[in-house]
Amino acid sequence: MGFKGILKEIVAESGGLGGVIMGYDGIAIDEYLREGTGVDVQTMTIEYASVLKEIKRTVGVLKTGELEEVSIITEKCCIIVRGISDDFFAALVLPSDGNFGKARFLLKRAAPGFRESLQ
Amino acid sequence: MGFKGILKEIVAESGGLGGVIMGYDGIAIDEYLREGTGVDVQTMTIEYASVLKEIKRTVGVLKTGELEEVSIITEKCCIIVRGISDDFFAALVLPSDGNFGKARFLLKRAAPGFRESLQ
Repeated sequence: MGFKGILKEIVAESGGLGGVIMGYDGIAIDEYLREGTGVDVQTMTIEYASVLKEIKRTVGVLKTGELEEVSIITEKCCIIVRGISDDFFAALVLPSDGNFGKARFLLKRAAPGFRESLQ
Repeated sequence: MGFKGILKEIVAESGGLGGVIMGYDGIAIDEYLREGTGVDVQTMTIEYASVLKEIKRTVGVLKTGELEEVSIITEKCCIIVRGISDDFFAALVLPSDGNFGKARFLLKRAAPGFRESLQ
């Protein structure tokens, strides 16, 4: 199963809106976007990519080890990001009633597979 | 009980390293730092403040409602941030074996009190 298939499974199981494998430069490798959600998951992940690059830089300055996970929760939705390599991350966008805990768990479980596929 | 007292309680209950009420400009209103942890919580929160400002700006661009919570997890520690007003946030730093879920819960529960005290 490719990236899209795994992302689709995670999105379905967590009640998500979409998932993406993306570079910190904002260019996606692959993505799965649920249709008709009214949320522009693509724009969201691209906008957050530059923020994530800044977070990664700060983590490097602070020397507290590799960046593992970032989550940003707003009133209407939340994004969970897991670093999979120096250049790429996996991100999942959830509505405010999505299963945050399950999404975190599923993304964490899928990360080693994503990492291997990128090597 | 002032900010410091509440932060101290949250730090103790979640196994945290320190907590702070800070402006997005990196200037702390109050803080409680557990001694002898070997982690510079102060530097960490100041460094992250500028990242949080950038996250807040991005959230504004995306129009997905107010920023509620940000968490950044690295190998050695994690920071949980809760927005309490347009200018201030509460942040908690945990070691990797800290109780992430409890820290999130306690910070969320304390936020309205922090908000009121700032008005």
